[in-house]
Amino acid sequence: MTCLIRLLEMPEAREPVLVEGLPGMGFVANIAAMHMIKELGGRKFAVITSSSFQDFAMTVEGGGIRTPVNELYYCPQDIIILYGNTQAEGSLGQYELCWEVLNLVKKMGCKMVLTMGGYRRERVLGRPRVYCAATNQGLLEEARRLCDGVIVGNIYGAAGLLLGLGKVLGLEGVCFLAETMDIYPDPRAALEVLKVVSRFLGFEIDLSKLEEAVFLTEELWKELAGEERREKAF
Amino acid sequence: MTCLIRLLEMPEAREPVLVEGLPGMGFVANIAAMHMIKELGGRKFAVITSSSFQDFAMTVEGGGIRTPVNELYYCPQDIIILYGNTQAEGSLGQYELCWEVLNLVKKMGCKMVLTMGGYRRERVLGRPRVYCAATNQGLLEEARRLCDGVIVGNIYGAAGLLLGLGKVLGLEGVCFLAETMDIYPDPRAALEVLKVVSRFLGFEIDLSKLEEAVFLTEELWKELAGEERREKAF
Amino acid sequence: MTCLIRLLEMPEAREPVLVEGLPGMGFVANIAAMHMIKELGGRKFAVITSSSFQDFAMTVEGGGIRTPVNELYYCPQDIIILYGNTQAEGSLGQYELCWEVLNLVKKMGCKMVLTMGGYRRERVLGRPRVYCAATNQGLLEEARRLCDGVIVGNIYGAAGLLLGLGKVLGLEGVCFLAETMDIYPDPRAALEVLKVVSRFLGFEIDLSKLEEAVFLTEELWKELAGEERREKAF
Amino acid sequence: MTCLIRLLEMPEAREPVLVEGLPGMGFVANIAAMHMIKELGGRKFAVITSSSFQDFAMTVEGGGIRTPVNELYYCPQDIIILYGNTQAEGSLGQYELCWEVLNLVKKMGCKMVLTMGGYRRERVLGRPRVYCAATNQGLLEEARRLCDGVIVGNIYGAAGLLLGLGKVLGLEGVCFLAETMDIYPDPRAALEVLKVVSRFLGFEIDLSKLEEAVFLTEELWKELAGEERREKAF
Repeated sequence: MTCLIRLLEMPEAREPVLVEGLPGMGFVANIAAMHMIKELGGRKFAVITSSSFQDFAMTVEGGGIRTPVNELYYCPQDIIILYGNTQAEGSLGQYELCWEVLNLVKKMGCKMVLTMGGYRRERVLGRPRVYCAATNQGLLEEARRLCDGVIVGNIYGAAGLLLGLGKVLGLEGVCFLAETMDIYPDPRAALEVLKVVSRFLGFEIDLSKLEEAVFLTEELWKELAGEERREKAF
Repeated sequence: MTCLIRLLEMPEAREPVLVEGLPGMGFVANIAAMHMIKELGGRKFAVITSSSFQDFAMTVEGGGIRTPVNELYYCPQDIIILYGNTQAEGSLGQYELCWEVLNLVKKMGCKMVLTMGGYRRERVLGRPRVYCAATNQGLLEEARRLCDGVIVGNIYGAAGLLLGLGKVLGLEGVCFLAETMDIYPDPRAALEVLKVVSRFLGFEIDLSKLEEAVFLTEELWKELAGEERREKAF
Repeated sequence: MTCLIRLLEMPEAREPVLVEGLPGMGFVANIAAMHMIKELGGRKFAVITSSSFQDFAMTVEGGGIRTPVNELYYCPQDIIILYGNTQAEGSLGQYELCWEVLNLVKKMGCKMVLTMGGYRRERVLGRPRVYCAATNQGLLEEARRLCDGVIVGNIYGAAGLLLGLGKVLGLEGVCFLAETMDIYPDPRAALEVLKVVSRFLGFEIDLSKLEEAVFLTEELWKELAGEERREKAF
Repeated sequence: MTCLIRLLEMPEAREPVLVEGLPGMGFVANIAAMHMIKELGGRKFAVITSSSFQDFAMTVEGGGIRTPVNELYYCPQDIIILYGNTQAEGSLGQYELCWEVLNLVKKMGCKMVLTMGGYRRERVLGRPRVYCAATNQGLLEEARRLCDGVIVGNIYGAAGLLLGLGKVLGLEGVCFLAETMDIYPDPRAALEVLKVVSRFLGFEIDLSKLEEAVFLTEELWKELAGEERREKAF
């Protein structure tokens, strides 16, 4: 089976942008994508299974069953979101899945891929900075105007591969990574990425729920840090 | 070749349930499936070879040759049993085999998959408890009524994957795991799973031979434990 | 490409036996097969390349180039020999290659597979004993009459897999393994296997060159052992 | 997708030689190929993507994105160059890519493959020596006249595999390896390989830029060595 895309419906997209939101560093892209789906009214239109996903089922509270899966959502803002609870394992699986997804969205009129993620830092002081990279000069200039600098180094997993394979298929690509310490799911980094992405793609989005999540996480964090400080005091 | 299903005959099934009984934790599913095949009069109708099985042949007493194989049996109670002496190795092999089996049984009218297995515990006191999970609410409620609680955690291998891929193909899924210490083939856990499964699927099964196996295993066990205690006494 | 069989010519076989002679324990099968090809007048009719062979080229004396390859030879005694300088690596590669070879020889009328190899022992005293296994009772009885006993344990690699996959394709299978310490290429074990195989298949073969190789190897061996003894004496 | 060759144009080759220049020991082939492309006026005509490349994107200065890729260039001297920033990982990926490339160039009239690379040495004193190997006697004799001896040992990766698979497809093959310590990109070894290759294939090439690179590298090297000596003096 390798990689199997089951279409639930075929949305009438115009020239949709593919936004990648799979789990990765600090779950930055994953949190941002989940928030986009909720706030933009995304509708699931495809379910993706890959033989490079892990071979198990997860149980959820009360005895339900969840399986490793990727999904495509269509938002009325003409945005397609690649969301899921896993990435394919191994180079072969990653290439296969990204390739299939890109071919599908290209058929739907897609001309641009936007990938998101975390940018690992030892320490993140104040607002996490957002960095960018792009597959062409025009896109890169637009992106740079909205964020704090350019990415230095490799972009791993689907976030990098979708850009490279997109190029092979003639799609433009841009990537936004927010600083994260990658030691917990990081809504603060997701928030900063989303601010930039919404400005870049020109859609309005209510970020209040995400801001609340950030607030709660930080309160928890301060408390833990306080305890740590207290512990260290003795 | 990847995964090859050789049909020996095509049983006239109505709306068969697929029951998974491959080797795994405590050989619980494997023992239970073997007992079902014998007691329900299962008839082998398909032989499955996969290039993800191990590449060797085993010899049996007297110079015969056994090879890694999975098999499908049809029982007159309209039950299909997936039995074998191995599981495919690696994610790709597991997905491929489960996918092929599910597609075959779906063509035969199957609408539900039931998987079995062991649930690892440090210690199992008294009767091993049986836990369940299911892919939809209705099935879950039925299952819970017959057992001791719901599964918490991951369901590995074919027992988990058949549920997830079954869902992709529109089949319902339910899983029963019995507590086992997973340090020896565990007929006691298999017996408890079989009691629940027979009630769940509504078939009659003579469990006396399995009970005898449990008795013999436990006698052996007590003796060993006695010796251990005696050893510890000095 | 996976596994590619290039036919050089199509020999007019009647009901040929496939004899496996790939490198393995003590190079027993490999040495025996090479000797059979030479003495029986085998003619190469197919070259096999697999993407599961190692990805390198070997140089030979004087700057020539040898590559990992398997080959099929046809001998006028209606014997097909699978010979080569490597086995496919990994389960997938092994299954693919054995499967392709078996399908080809089956088309040529083959109904029986005979595999050879070494049987690892800590020490081999006197003549290496030869053990057998077979996929059916009739063949097994014939085989047992000609050798020292039956194989206990697993038969690894192509020697085991060809038997198992042969069974799937409806071919009979028999295996002869000779005792070897597997610490050097072992012509003595190859000689013993060949004696049994020639009797089993009913062909005449001049074993004098192989006997000479055995003699030379043993002389060398005694010398080394003598030195070792002398070393131990001090 | 496995291995995907995207043709940008189809050059009118006559009987082109395929020259391999992928990254490997001391980057010898890679540097030599890059220099050939520049000096011979090579024109990119195909882009190769493989699911056995690594699954990431690299950023370049200023926020651009580079992806793992192989490319084919056609030079007016009737030479096709296989160039890239990576080799496929794993045996399967290497075989697939080499196989696809060889089939393409064979269709373009290619009858000979020339591979280059480094030959690892503990120490390289004075001019790095160049060694050769070839798939037939005629080619080997021509090659030996132009270099310092024949290769002893294995030729790893695409440099070896293109020769072996070329043979399967009926293409002649020759390989030139220059001595390198393989601890830094080695333009000096690349220069020596290029001198031999240009004479072997009979094309003129301006080596002055490569000589300059060698000079600069060696100056740097002497300085480092000097420092090391000074450090050792204390």
